[in-house]
Amino acid sequence: MHTDFKLIRHSIVAITLIVSTHCVVGQYLMPMPSSILLGSGFLRIDSSFTVRLLNPDDETLTSAARRFVERLMKRTGIPISEGIVRGEAIVKLSVSYRKISGKTQSAVEDESYTLTVAENGAEVKAETRCGVLRGLETFLQLIEIGSDGFRVPCLTIEDKPRFPWRGLLIDACRHWLPVEIIKRNLDGMAMVKMNVLHWHLSEDQGFRVESRKFPKLHGMGSDGNYYTQEQIKEVISYAADRGIRVVPEFDMPGHSTAWFVGYPEIASAPGPYQIERKWGVFDPAMDPTREETYKFLDEFIGEMAKLFPDEYFHIGGDEVNGKQWDANLKIQEFKRKNNLEDNHALQAYFNRRVLAILKKHGKKMIGWDEIFHPDLPKDIVVQSWRGQKSLAEGAKQGYQGILSFGYYLDHIRPASYHYSIDPIDSTIASLTKEEQSRILGGEACMWAEYVSPENVDSRIWPRTAAIAERLWSPASVKDAETMYRRLEVVSKQLEYVELTHRTSYTQMLERLAGNNSIEPLKVLADVVEPVKFYERGKTRQYTSLTPLNRLVDATRPESNNARIFARLLREFQQNKTSNNDRTLLNDLLALWKENHAKLEPLLANNQLLDDVEPLSRDLADVSVIALKLMETFASKENLTEGQTRLFTAILQRAEKQKGALLLMVVPPVKKLFESAQK
Amino acid sequence: MHTDFKLIRHSIVAITLIVSTHCVVGQYLMPMPSSILLGSGFLRIDSSFTVRLLNPDDETLTSAARRFVERLMKRTGIPISEGIVRGEAIVKLSVSYRKISGKTQSAVEDESYTLTVAENGAEVKAETRCGVLRGLETFLQLIEIGSDGFRVPCLTIEDKPRFPWRGLLIDACRHWLPVEIIKRNLDGMAMVKMNVLHWHLSEDQGFRVESRKFPKLHGMGSDGNYYTQEQIKEVISYAADRGIRVVPEFDMPGHSTAWFVGYPEIASAPGPYQIERKWGVFDPAMDPTREETYKFLDEFIGEMAKLFPDEYFHIGGDEVNGKQWDANLKIQEFKRKNNLEDNHALQAYFNRRVLAILKKHGKKMIGWDEIFHPDLPKDIVVQSWRGQKSLAEGAKQGYQGILSFGYYLDHIRPASYHYSIDPIDSTIASLTKEEQSRILGGEACMWAEYVSPENVDSRIWPRTAAIAERLWSPASVKDAETMYRRLEVVSKQLEYVELTHRTSYTQMLERLAGNNSIEPLKVLADVVEPVKFYERGKTRQYTSLTPLNRLVDATRPESNNARIFARLLREFQQNKTSNNDRTLLNDLLALWKENHAKLEPLLANNQLLDDVEPLSRDLADVSVIALKLMETFASKENLTEGQTRLFTAILQRAEKQKGALLLMVVPPVKKLFESAQK
Repeated sequence: MHTDFKLIRHSIVAITLIVSTHCVVGQYLMPMPSSILLGSGFLRIDSSFTVRLLNPDDETLTSAARRFVERLMKRTGIPISEGIVRGEAIVKLSVSYRKISGKTQSAVEDESYTLTVAENGAEVKAETRCGVLRGLETFLQLIEIGSDGFRVPCLTIEDKPRFPWRGLLIDACRHWLPVEIIKRNLDGMAMVKMNVLHWHLSEDQGFRVESRKFPKLHGMGSDGNYYTQEQIKEVISYAADRGIRVVPEFDMPGHSTAWFVGYPEIASAPGPYQIERKWGVFDPAMDPTREETYKFLDEFIGEMAKLFPDEYFHIGGDEVNGKQWDANLKIQEFKRKNNLEDNHALQAYFNRRVLAILKKHGKKMIGWDEIFHPDLPKDIVVQSWRGQKSLAEGAKQGYQGILSFGYYLDHIRPASYHYSIDPIDSTIASLTKEEQSRILGGEACMWAEYVSPENVDSRIWPRTAAIAERLWSPASVKDAETMYRRLEVVSKQLEYVELTHRTSYTQMLERLAGNNSIEPLKVLADVVEPVKFYERGKTRQYTSLTPLNRLVDATRPESNNARIFARLLREFQQNKTSNNDRTLLNDLLALWKENHAKLEPLLANNQLLDDVEPLSRDLADVSVIALKLMETFASKENLTEGQTRLFTAILQRAEKQKGALLLMVVPPVKKLFESAQK
Repeated sequence: MHTDFKLIRHSIVAITLIVSTHCVVGQYLMPMPSSILLGSGFLRIDSSFTVRLLNPDDETLTSAARRFVERLMKRTGIPISEGIVRGEAIVKLSVSYRKISGKTQSAVEDESYTLTVAENGAEVKAETRCGVLRGLETFLQLIEIGSDGFRVPCLTIEDKPRFPWRGLLIDACRHWLPVEIIKRNLDGMAMVKMNVLHWHLSEDQGFRVESRKFPKLHGMGSDGNYYTQEQIKEVISYAADRGIRVVPEFDMPGHSTAWFVGYPEIASAPGPYQIERKWGVFDPAMDPTREETYKFLDEFIGEMAKLFPDEYFHIGGDEVNGKQWDANLKIQEFKRKNNLEDNHALQAYFNRRVLAILKKHGKKMIGWDEIFHPDLPKDIVVQSWRGQKSLAEGAKQGYQGILSFGYYLDHIRPASYHYSIDPIDSTIASLTKEEQSRILGGEACMWAEYVSPENVDSRIWPRTAAIAERLWSPASVKDAETMYRRLEVVSKQLEYVELTHRTSYTQMLERLAGNNSIEPLKVLADVVEPVKFYERGKTRQYTSLTPLNRLVDATRPESNNARIFARLLREFQQNKTSNNDRTLLNDLLALWKENHAKLEPLLANNQLLDDVEPLSRDLADVSVIALKLMETFASKENLTEGQTRLFTAILQRAEKQKGALLLMVVPPVKKLFESAQK
């Protein structure tokens, strides 16, 4: 009779349900540490909590400790009066590291740490300051609430990362992302122990950094949306404080239309050029045959090399379609004269020239798969969107690599998919240990064609935490179910650093609903997902000025409700469902079945929801089918021929995308239907 | 059977239900304008939207227009490329004012404006820049979504405020409130057309402004939590940009312990002094008999008068208990010698001296009721916590006044209560027009004993919007039901300026729930309220270091669910309930009845929830009673004697506060019970 409460719990906040109320240490940790040795008892956290720094002269560590205390206060709501002590007072957490790190964090920094928690105090010990930062994050994740208030369980954690390079690429070009968004994402990265921000700063659609040498780059190539050099420095120092390197990417020779708006002379066709407003691969490319191009790049890279202290400099190098080169007679002649047999060879020539410039300015080169060429020296890093095979080939020839294949957040795939992608797959596992060691790690990629300042956090988080765990934790940590439980917890905690990945959902749905209650819209939104890969671009003509304010932009990349529904239906099929779960399934389906009638008034006269109606109708129809299938399944009856025909037709219709949205409850119902026909 | 959906809508987000889906112009406006003349058709908002400023040289207006465009983009999700134009392009909104205002906004600024919206464009015309700002806020509130996308209905609004002084007092002393919190509240104030931030800056518990003349004021009196002069200037300019004056309050001669930590020599007893950690009225007071005190105040006020440009300077003046004065023989002698018959006369002497200092530095005096004394000149303003009677007395004698009685947000009373308090009550209405005109308006007061940076927004908003409407709109606008509907809409919109009044609720409940689902806790939290007036201080010993992280701190000042439940039950009693509403009542009561069992696991071993158990049990018991009462009501049976005894006992128990919390569903059930006994 009173199924209501359960339903509220289960349907609206379904995922939180599966987080057990029992305290299992490690349940809240993400990424999972290498080893946990559980003790007994707890360290209590109260307003007398203090941190002692055994490396007291380290300003960066002091400010990290201050941030730690701030976050401890937010997490507990307890005002902590003292915070940081240097003297011999009784302390709750003491912190130390052994080595003095270099001024700039290296790409192979030792990030290991030991965290010991006892009833009378805790200790973080590390080789480097960076290790301390990682240990402090683990401590914060361990906070729980008990009968004696907030506390951390007694234990010893020994931890270190599996890969040294754990990055997040943020594309600030396709859509402009103001500096505060970059900062809060750095905080999120630090929480899950990521250590590289790969900042994609130039593109066909925008040049996003102030250049004092070439002011027309940002002046004419950005619509006024660029980072000043002061802001860049601010972000770099913000990142460094959190143990994160900033690797800038200036894509060349392609993906560079925005450069040419101000400087058409370095392009391979005369111009004039406009900032590109559409998405895709475009023809403009730098002219690799003219010395002026290299002179320009020398000066430009010289300026940027000073601005960005990291040892690596990303030159992009991807997707040069060669059309401008083919159409330029002088370039054709240059190729012939220099025995460059194709455009790939011409690009390799360009890269060698750029490499020399980078070396001159003290930088190592990193670029996408396309830069890989046996002529290049061994200290370059290849970032692979192509996959582990491509990395393996490089590694065999002595090249270092990082993986981004399988980590494209804009493909809108579930966390479990990204989680299943390991930089060391079977191809690479067959290499020698030394060759394998050339795989430095990986990077999640947030390409920004379909994200705005409003929803970018929700595309990055919480899914990126699953990638962070893949890159930090032992390879053996790979169960998706427990990952999802911990992901839900970490997702809540990411809110404490002002990330909007959860709040933007409600706010965007509210905008769509006008001033109506969002509930029926939310019931639908909770079970849909945006289309995958590059399908969205095929649904309508998008430009950088197209509003991203529709349901597809509000909805989450991964429907937790659909995921749990699929699991329940699978268990039902296997006769493994408890009574409770069967009631839950029925309640969910009833909710969905009834939802269309509730949603209809909202859809009328609402331009932004004009493509939602068929989706909502499908949800109702598919729910009716599922209820019927469950009934026949239980009664062991067969479907009539008419039912079979009708269900087939409805499911075929419902599994197709509507606009740019997919109804995620269709595949599990289809599976149940197929099994009913066997 | 499938009551679930309704229940989710009704119980969890009940209030949004009553906002009709029909578009009634004015439904979204708060404060309600003086007059609306509705036209037909709509002005569409798309990415070509432009604002033209007919006073193009006004920097402040230009930045206001820029903020307006920013907010338009956020409200609609539409990127607006041009934004502001100066030339003759086709514009969607043109903006002009007539008079050039003074450098600093006066206390009687003309804030009237006319907003005309036609299909091809809109216009805001005003006397002053301040009026333009008010008109732009009205435009933003009119945005709705229709079959042609976002739009504003065609209409003409003529609008002006009823009172010139519409303020919010923020106490940054009892708990420290960082500058970003002040800023976002200024944005909230601007949205509801308030025009005075009364910034309470010194107290027994803290001195919050950097003084360069007397650096021990903030240096020893603030625990390091103070606003730098740069920050003060930043806030003042931020406020001025939004048409808001900043009136600083430095409370004297009482409420001043924090001054004396660094400067005991101006106190009436030798000290030493510590920053006060407790709440209440304390003995320390400035020594009004020593010339050194006035020398100090002259220099201090001189410094602050330069920092704060407003024409008014608030000297507090409240709650001097006189104990230090009575205990000081020199002060006693001074009183005798100067024929000051009591401490009130001594304080009046002090005030006259301070008034002379204020005049010297070009400021008018404002203070609380206690400063009122017939000796003072007529240009002072009395702020009344005592009530309209006190204001009326002053007005008759020629003094100006503002009302704060009835607007104390820390009393945790419902919006409808504040809404019912009118600065012109029957006492004042009987005065002459001229006397009445001395009532300048009112101020909502956010005293900060029980608020933290985390929940202060939720104590201020949305209730303050009801006070803002009382002070802006015609007196005839006073229906509480329609006010609540509009309040819900404005509450959502306040989120767009980063106020956390809605999001902090979930986040604080999540902290209380550990890593469990918050749903059962939320069901309870949705129907409880903190105790009223000063009751909370009696429930335990609070200091400024007591964590504010319990259910009472998370829960909202006003339970919408309980309010709607009370209305439904009242209608039920009057036989006015629809079938739907009766089902809803039953569903709600069933939800509450079952909730305790769901909540119990969360309460076990959770120190922060250790006082919640009896409350949760009461909710279950009272729901059972209500269900039974509805049943007997419907069947026209009588309660048995045993039932009557039992229900009486349970309701008596349940209506008592538990810890610092009240169960708000008890009073309506008690009413139903009482009517059943008649």
